[in-house]
Amino acid sequence: MEKNLKEIARLLNGSVSTADAEVKVKNLGNISNAVEGDLIFAVDGHIEEAARSKASAVLIPLEVKEFPLPSIRVNDPRAAFARLLETFAKPKLNIKVGISDRAYVGKGVELGRDVTIMPFAVVDDFARIGDGAIIYPHVYIGQHTTIGANTIIYSSVTVREYCEIGARCVIHSSAVIGADGFGFTTKDGVHTKVPQVGNVVVEDDVEIGAHVGIDRAAMGSTVIGHGTKIDNLVHIGHNCRIGANCLIVAQTGISGSTTVGDNVTFGGQVGTVGHITIGGNSVYAARSGIHKNMPEGFFGAGFPVQPHTEWLRMTASLKKVPELIKADRQSKET
Amino acid sequence: MEKNLKEIARLLNGSVSTADAEVKVKNLGNISNAVEGDLIFAVDGHIEEAARSKASAVLIPLEVKEFPLPSIRVNDPRAAFARLLETFAKPKLNIKVGISDRAYVGKGVELGRDVTIMPFAVVDDFARIGDGAIIYPHVYIGQHTTIGANTIIYSSVTVREYCEIGARCVIHSSAVIGADGFGFTTKDGVHTKVPQVGNVVVEDDVEIGAHVGIDRAAMGSTVIGHGTKIDNLVHIGHNCRIGANCLIVAQTGISGSTTVGDNVTFGGQVGTVGHITIGGNSVYAARSGIHKNMPEGFFGAGFPVQPHTEWLRMTASLKKVPELIKADRQSKET
Amino acid sequence: MEKNLKEIARLLNGSVSTADAEVKVKNLGNISNAVEGDLIFAVDGHIEEAARSKASAVLIPLEVKEFPLPSIRVNDPRAAFARLLETFAKPKLNIKVGISDRAYVGKGVELGRDVTIMPFAVVDDFARIGDGAIIYPHVYIGQHTTIGANTIIYSSVTVREYCEIGARCVIHSSAVIGADGFGFTTKDGVHTKVPQVGNVVVEDDVEIGAHVGIDRAAMGSTVIGHGTKIDNLVHIGHNCRIGANCLIVAQTGISGSTTVGDNVTFGGQVGTVGHITIGGNSVYAARSGIHKNMPEGFFGAGFPVQPHTEWLRMTASLKKVPELIKADRQSKET
Repeated sequence: MEKNLKEIARLLNGSVSTADAEVKVKNLGNISNAVEGDLIFAVDGHIEEAARSKASAVLIPLEVKEFPLPSIRVNDPRAAFARLLETFAKPKLNIKVGISDRAYVGKGVELGRDVTIMPFAVVDDFARIGDGAIIYPHVYIGQHTTIGANTIIYSSVTVREYCEIGARCVIHSSAVIGADGFGFTTKDGVHTKVPQVGNVVVEDDVEIGAHVGIDRAAMGSTVIGHGTKIDNLVHIGHNCRIGANCLIVAQTGISGSTTVGDNVTFGGQVGTVGHITIGGNSVYAARSGIHKNMPEGFFGAGFPVQPHTEWLRMTASLKKVPELIKADRQSKET
Repeated sequence: MEKNLKEIARLLNGSVSTADAEVKVKNLGNISNAVEGDLIFAVDGHIEEAARSKASAVLIPLEVKEFPLPSIRVNDPRAAFARLLETFAKPKLNIKVGISDRAYVGKGVELGRDVTIMPFAVVDDFARIGDGAIIYPHVYIGQHTTIGANTIIYSSVTVREYCEIGARCVIHSSAVIGADGFGFTTKDGVHTKVPQVGNVVVEDDVEIGAHVGIDRAAMGSTVIGHGTKIDNLVHIGHNCRIGANCLIVAQTGISGSTTVGDNVTFGGQVGTVGHITIGGNSVYAARSGIHKNMPEGFFGAGFPVQPHTEWLRMTASLKKVPELIKADRQSKET
Repeated sequence: MEKNLKEIARLLNGSVSTADAEVKVKNLGNISNAVEGDLIFAVDGHIEEAARSKASAVLIPLEVKEFPLPSIRVNDPRAAFARLLETFAKPKLNIKVGISDRAYVGKGVELGRDVTIMPFAVVDDFARIGDGAIIYPHVYIGQHTTIGANTIIYSSVTVREYCEIGARCVIHSSAVIGADGFGFTTKDGVHTKVPQVGNVVVEDDVEIGAHVGIDRAAMGSTVIGHGTKIDNLVHIGHNCRIGANCLIVAQTGISGSTTVGDNVTFGGQVGTVGHITIGGNSVYAARSGIHKNMPEGFFGAGFPVQPHTEWLRMTASLKKVPELIKADRQSKET
């Protein structure tokens, strides 16, 4: 990049001292292994580590008073740094806007302006693709499915028939949206499929990780609320309703017909039973196993789930059980 | 749909009172949010809820005597409802029977009657596809692999070489059947691949979820018994033999060379070690961790697995350990 | 195959008695269900079982003195058997070396000698494919990505832009290398994507299972060390650095920015938090949950992780807690 701090401060709406204004940086770097020429960022708790680094300059919070290295003060160093990554560091890609003559576009398909459809993608009959959407190779968009404007769908994603994907979504490779939910009736030990006639609705600004499966509803819709971000290998069963602005970390599984409020974070490998309601503004630590309805504003952990502080106390105590049992046995013997 | 109850009762082989025969319904609905015009179903334990709903009519079990709303009595309301979903509610799809000129069909391939192969699917050399099978875009069928009659294989599924898939199976998008098992010999810390020369045999009427991986055997076959239904993101290691009519819920992992009897249900996120035998007619609750041979007819939970009732009792008791330890410490101090 | 033991001993650099030299075998078999005509192998602990089998001959370790069946003594029976599998038992595949006229190869792509690119694979602009590499249908190789010599990439794999894959790697179907890491900044409950501008580097001789996701680094590289083998459905977060010759069993999740030493084995369904260091030459049992930095040479289990022997002792003791609590209650009542 090779910029001086004055230029960068202007871009970020940040402030730089006159003494630092002409300091030059070449690369965006990382607090733990910064080298000369790097610009890094530091948030609270990491200010001293940044001060000891070899970086040439640091983005720091407005409220930091003294700082030994050249610096730019900004409102939110992490967000400012993300902006720089977008502007300077993103590897260049050559996206050919338009419909590849090796793609397959079915009958009755509606394509917005500036749509990109890459080789061997399939957009099946009566699908609608919004303005500026980018569809990578080997994507399958089912019949009557809608993709919102400026959504990016990476290679080998499937969105089955009659689903709706919002605007500005990002769907990573090999995600599957709208496969049949897991529904059977059982008689004399034989399982018969219940037709899954609903769909999946993914609202705007949702990101969906690689190998995520979101099943179509038995009837009605499985819904992912706007702004929710889903990590890799997550399972969301049929008829779930996930709120807005949730974070769902990798390998979590949400069983069918579960309703999740807004702003809920699930750590990795969380599991829930089906047919429950999980209140909004909550955090569940990794591996939580949620087996019942949960209130708003909960911080949970463990399986069966309990308040996080109780879980910490319990797991610490469990390590002492062997000696407790030994003592108990000895006291009986005496 | 717009049908009266007499017509529907005839279709379902159910009974309707003369008073209700002309009642009209428009949609299939759900007990929890039914509106006027909906036909819903109710099974035992939900009869009163259905009676209080706003549905226009309800499918109820034969043995219900009094019921305040228009109703049809049937042997199995859930199964009857599934039949109606299939008949009236399934979204229409335009499946073009035949081989797309954009598909790739290798040499020596045998195709049954009324086979559908969609654009960009690959059916490699010497594969055989049964009558009425439907193969979606981006499916790869390996060399010498057999697909049974009327099996549906959704987009981006892989079935590697020399595997056998039965009739009337459903394989959801991005499932991978027949990837190499995880087998290595280790010498001086270096791992050398053991060739995985076996295959996978999937019997008739099996359903396989999105992102399921079933590995080919080292030698011989990995087998999935007929009628077994597998949810999303399940792992089945090489040389496993899964019985008939099992239900394997999402994110479960069965390690290699494990034998599972018939009619076993694994809840979500279950794990097993390899080289064990798990008896039939059993249920393992979500998150069970099965580390040893298990008998027939077991209801298990927990990790290490134990009888479900003991697990419930144990997990309830563990929450009391912190106070037990505190009391113990105090008693020693006094 | 139909070979006599003399021929096989020569191939394996093993020794056979004169009496056994002309004994003929037809198939490679398995200790647990061997039939006449089978050649099987036996390692320590299984010698007697092999001696009682119906196999026609057995590969046994050099140090076994007496053995009742025809046998070949070799240094490492398991590895010798793997060699035979490779030579005699591997099902024949017809790989057409060269670039299918139905593949898509972008501009500026460099192809080595004897490369195979199958129908509907996409090798995007400026990618480089090493000598002898085999690329199956529906693979997507992103722009500026490098694939090493003799690497095999099975169907529907994605390797996104600017990644580097080493030589002699095997990548199984539907693996996704280089999807965006899960990185967001949050303000007022709204999550904004942090551009993931790094890449993934997979060193030589790595095997990657079906549905594995390895995310690209936020900056810099996510690295998989040489010789590491990864089973199905494993998640590796952005900026992880996995050492050489590790074994990572199915459904394990390694959170972002975690560093793992060489020769580490993770059993199935292990999870780790992010930003930790896990020392080399270690084994973590299935389901371990690793929440903190770990030393070299550790044998861990449980969640939170602890030494394996302590975990065994603890889990055994926990089953006794219900009766302990009952006794405690009774003692208080009296």
